[in-house]
Amino acid sequence: MLVVMDQNASQEEISSVVRAIEAQGLVARPIPGGQRVAIGILHNQGPVDPLWLRELPGVKEVIRVTKPYKLVSRECKPADTLVHVGDVSIGNGHHTIIAGPCAVESESQALAIGRLVKEAGAHLFRGGAFKPRTSPYSFQGLGEEGLKILAQVRDETGLPVVTEDPDHEAFDLVEAYADVVQIGARNMQSFSLLRRAGQSHRPILLKRGMSATIEEWLMAAEYILEGGNPNIVLCERGIRTFADHSRNTLDLSAVLVVQKESHLPIIIDPSHAAGRRSQVIPMSRAAVAVGAHGLIVEVHNVPEKALSDGGQSLYPEQFEDLCQQVQVLRRQLTP
Amino acid sequence: MLVVMDQNASQEEISSVVRAIEAQGLVARPIPGGQRVAIGILHNQGPVDPLWLRELPGVKEVIRVTKPYKLVSRECKPADTLVHVGDVSIGNGHHTIIAGPCAVESESQALAIGRLVKEAGAHLFRGGAFKPRTSPYSFQGLGEEGLKILAQVRDETGLPVVTEDPDHEAFDLVEAYADVVQIGARNMQSFSLLRRAGQSHRPILLKRGMSATIEEWLMAAEYILEGGNPNIVLCERGIRTFADHSRNTLDLSAVLVVQKESHLPIIIDPSHAAGRRSQVIPMSRAAVAVGAHGLIVEVHNVPEKALSDGGQSLYPEQFEDLCQQVQVLRRQLTP
Amino acid sequence: MLVVMDQNASQEEISSVVRAIEAQGLVARPIPGGQRVAIGILHNQGPVDPLWLRELPGVKEVIRVTKPYKLVSRECKPADTLVHVGDVSIGNGHHTIIAGPCAVESESQALAIGRLVKEAGAHLFRGGAFKPRTSPYSFQGLGEEGLKILAQVRDETGLPVVTEDPDHEAFDLVEAYADVVQIGARNMQSFSLLRRAGQSHRPILLKRGMSATIEEWLMAAEYILEGGNPNIVLCERGIRTFADHSRNTLDLSAVLVVQKESHLPIIIDPSHAAGRRSQVIPMSRAAVAVGAHGLIVEVHNVPEKALSDGGQSLYPEQFEDLCQQVQVLRRQLTP
Amino acid sequence: MLVVMDQNASQEEISSVVRAIEAQGLVARPIPGGQRVAIGILHNQGPVDPLWLRELPGVKEVIRVTKPYKLVSRECKPADTLVHVGDVSIGNGHHTIIAGPCAVESESQALAIGRLVKEAGAHLFRGGAFKPRTSPYSFQGLGEEGLKILAQVRDETGLPVVTEDPDHEAFDLVEAYADVVQIGARNMQSFSLLRRAGQSHRPILLKRGMSATIEEWLMAAEYILEGGNPNIVLCERGIRTFADHSRNTLDLSAVLVVQKESHLPIIIDPSHAAGRRSQVIPMSRAAVAVGAHGLIVEVHNVPEKALSDGGQSLYPEQFEDLCQQVQVLRRQLTP
Repeated sequence: MLVVMDQNASQEEISSVVRAIEAQGLVARPIPGGQRVAIGILHNQGPVDPLWLRELPGVKEVIRVTKPYKLVSRECKPADTLVHVGDVSIGNGHHTIIAGPCAVESESQALAIGRLVKEAGAHLFRGGAFKPRTSPYSFQGLGEEGLKILAQVRDETGLPVVTEDPDHEAFDLVEAYADVVQIGARNMQSFSLLRRAGQSHRPILLKRGMSATIEEWLMAAEYILEGGNPNIVLCERGIRTFADHSRNTLDLSAVLVVQKESHLPIIIDPSHAAGRRSQVIPMSRAAVAVGAHGLIVEVHNVPEKALSDGGQSLYPEQFEDLCQQVQVLRRQLTP
Repeated sequence: MLVVMDQNASQEEISSVVRAIEAQGLVARPIPGGQRVAIGILHNQGPVDPLWLRELPGVKEVIRVTKPYKLVSRECKPADTLVHVGDVSIGNGHHTIIAGPCAVESESQALAIGRLVKEAGAHLFRGGAFKPRTSPYSFQGLGEEGLKILAQVRDETGLPVVTEDPDHEAFDLVEAYADVVQIGARNMQSFSLLRRAGQSHRPILLKRGMSATIEEWLMAAEYILEGGNPNIVLCERGIRTFADHSRNTLDLSAVLVVQKESHLPIIIDPSHAAGRRSQVIPMSRAAVAVGAHGLIVEVHNVPEKALSDGGQSLYPEQFEDLCQQVQVLRRQLTP
Repeated sequence: MLVVMDQNASQEEISSVVRAIEAQGLVARPIPGGQRVAIGILHNQGPVDPLWLRELPGVKEVIRVTKPYKLVSRECKPADTLVHVGDVSIGNGHHTIIAGPCAVESESQALAIGRLVKEAGAHLFRGGAFKPRTSPYSFQGLGEEGLKILAQVRDETGLPVVTEDPDHEAFDLVEAYADVVQIGARNMQSFSLLRRAGQSHRPILLKRGMSATIEEWLMAAEYILEGGNPNIVLCERGIRTFADHSRNTLDLSAVLVVQKESHLPIIIDPSHAAGRRSQVIPMSRAAVAVGAHGLIVEVHNVPEKALSDGGQSLYPEQFEDLCQQVQVLRRQLTP
Repeated sequence: MLVVMDQNASQEEISSVVRAIEAQGLVARPIPGGQRVAIGILHNQGPVDPLWLRELPGVKEVIRVTKPYKLVSRECKPADTLVHVGDVSIGNGHHTIIAGPCAVESESQALAIGRLVKEAGAHLFRGGAFKPRTSPYSFQGLGEEGLKILAQVRDETGLPVVTEDPDHEAFDLVEAYADVVQIGARNMQSFSLLRRAGQSHRPILLKRGMSATIEEWLMAAEYILEGGNPNIVLCERGIRTFADHSRNTLDLSAVLVVQKESHLPIIIDPSHAAGRRSQVIPMSRAAVAVGAHGLIVEVHNVPEKALSDGGQSLYPEQFEDLCQQVQVLRRQLTP
């Protein structure tokens, strides 16, 4: 933490800030500069947030110097985390494709899609049993019935399954059926859910909140790690911006920053970012090219009858095409 | 819903879109225009989202015409909703001030602040017992102990209390102590929490999500209303933008749009939007001037020792000043 | 400038950063902290931007400590700047209302509106002669003909006139007719225009760019001041955000930050921020309440026939109402 | 244009909107729906913007149905535009790499970089002679001296040169030396500059404004096309969002939308979007993978001595590496 003083701050104001810092048991270190004084604060992990110093006389600004995350940081653990799900590994050197419908709608739908994505090359199956929907009048998912269908898909195809847990309450249930528990973008800062996920024996797929900074996202992962669960896969799914030609703006540079700051794997969800089918394949290629550890993509056997997100779900043959393109790209990128 | 066709769309493409609409049991109404055809869709409240039409050949765009909210809309209920909390009324013609510390830290702190905000003119007391914090290492609130202290503040000052419920699980507990249950910005789309709030006998203070459109916010309120609870107070608390000189950007025009679209009362939280004390009083004045139904403000007796948000909490004398300024302004604005 | 080192940075990496700083003639001052070293850079006003240090081995981050603006800053000139236009003063303690049509459309239109806004209480007249329009097919203004009409309005009403200069080329012409030359939001970083404005004997109304930070905005003003023209009025007119219920999001906290950081006056344009008439009066009240030094508002005698921005222009009687409300508010706010 | 009426709008209100539309010489076509009436407006290319209808009694919303651009649209010209610069073609099926320093600093610097980017595989040389800088105290470019050096680079390497024109005034000069004239992001809506570019015999590289929608960007290109110059290359360079881990957020989906809506080529500038060297190569790969028609990249022989943007300029060997990666990727993507 660095307290930057006004150019015209008096000696008394400077001393007064130093005393205020020391009164909280912290160490203040004044740094005289060319035009003004700055005061470094050491050991500021205490309970009181020194941002309040901003309001003292003679203070121009208070700047945070150190990132607040610890366990998720590469400084803390330099080697990449590999998350294992059955025989599948997610992270360092691997590229994992997760595919399936937005929502599980019926046994026949889920099984049909499960078989075709497996055939095409997916490593995990996705499908929503509990659907967080903006409107209370929209299809909300089949609930436990949907989870049972997911288990059937796993049994039949051998693909581990990923599904979203909507809240703390349903966690036990979801954990019992799913191989990977997804925490959705809207829940990225539902802290009791994060704490429960920290006690889970399942890997967690943690989506980035629609307006979360990378720091906030890594802090959400910190909750899970701090709770004892080291198996976290981050997922960028588009951020909210003024741009209105895609549902959200896919922030691919987040992959690079996460890989620099953290040891956790990071994958991309092009379907929710785009919100329209025609953007999904090219944005997936971009995600592979930037170096993400995988993709999570929506696929439906009859998109025009899908109960949710039909407009962004790939047709089966498109998904096959995508898998082939990914394979070719990967071969070039990892010599 | 309006399907806008390409200027060069063939007659066959147009017919094909009409057939696709009708195949879903909806009514298609082609509207020939100067340069292109548009096709209106009537009765599109079915389970399938017609946005998928966007991907059909010859389709340029699909435009939503009708807002998805019903019960929260003024079209559905033209008269303003008045929310009653004890003797206090929130909404139409009233201006309500809610004040207190960010977090309940101790009995003596809460009581001291409770007395002083009551004295200065607050109508309700606020204070967090469960604190959603970005970092797992920050002070997380006193939990039930905090709720008991809130009850004491109510007993002693006569002020009804508002406190945040962090999740579905804690709802029963919070509901038992609080007069108004707050749903925080990060939980605006925690749908199981919204459904639980819909069954509550307590009024709900629903904060706008940091990147929520007004439509999404009203849809969150729709969940609560649809569940059976008509007592909702909306609260604008700043949105996330590129601007970095305040914590968030207070979107005061939201007050006007909400008041036009909905019958629900709307108040302003200048403290969280600003993130720094010096902006709180002037932004509060602006909130009153724009016509909001009230304010929720952070006040602390010793801000520099606050365990959270000290930098944005008003000093007692500043809060008195604010209350006087509000009174004067209100007198002028409501002749 | 502060270079923050990795927690695990080696002594050699630290020394190497120090040497790189010194190689550019700057002073490096290492600050050992609890967990990591930071290195302060003194006297970094040289030609080379030290941000490149970010890419050196062992460097975690480079943080700017000092704001780049000088002449516009309150540190440089503590007293408020008062801008004089004829008998009107803009700034400290004054509240100035600028009103008129979006575009000058004809002599009769401009004169009619000029008379009525004068009558209602406006201090300056506004009207566009050169209209920057998103579409080449829209009405582009009357050009010099429009400037002549503006001069007529001034002659007849006694109101000084404000009009936008679209580019460097037209500056001489606009300067010859206008009392205040406006630089529009889209031109906030047209640097040759700013340099020309710096040599003008006219006050400049400098609108904030739609996505400009306050720092960038003040730096644009710095160009004008540095060129020799101290008479600048800043104007906040809404920023671009994800919110779609107003044309832009009016950022009222900018008023507070500008008044803290700079000595220049700042006014608000509620018409362009809102983009719809119904929001203009309440947002104007909010602007007054927050403490802006004035308003610039669009008024039209027959808005439904306006050649631009008809939907956001006030009717004459609404403008009268606004002026009365402003007067009442001002009386309360400045005891 | 579609006027959506309130659910409770009276027949009189509906008729009144119809009359208002017809009073402006437009055609109104009421469309009775399930719950409300909408009124289509045909032939609304007149001078008055029908958005003002939004404020009439009984009107809920006014929705634009048709995009305002004409000449830039694929509806108007279905075949891809190929822009020719010397022997180089930009657009459909081609992938063009433009590289060079941010600013021309000296003859020896420019020639050294010109030779090495040519050697590595660049098709055009870039270099700024007039530098738009946020600060008046930063290096502003060598001006005409810089243009002359660019011509030398062309003579010696055979690479056509791209350089930014800062304003209308300098256009003749820049046009005399450059093979492609760049209009920067800050000038995307400097309309007199766009009009001048419309009369140029040089191709124009038009960068997207930092907060421009695709519609606004295409309208800027429409100015140039409408002026008579069909040779335009669009360039996405990152948009302003809340994300702070890159200078701007590169919006790669813009490539897909531009290619669908328009016949103009579109390239990517990863250097300015990223603002830091380490992100440039992976984001370039993503740009190639998404299908952009090319890249414009900053390269410097001694980045740590660069007078601007040193932190984001590639080292020579990095640029060679990039060119090879691009070649490999392109081979896979275009079978």
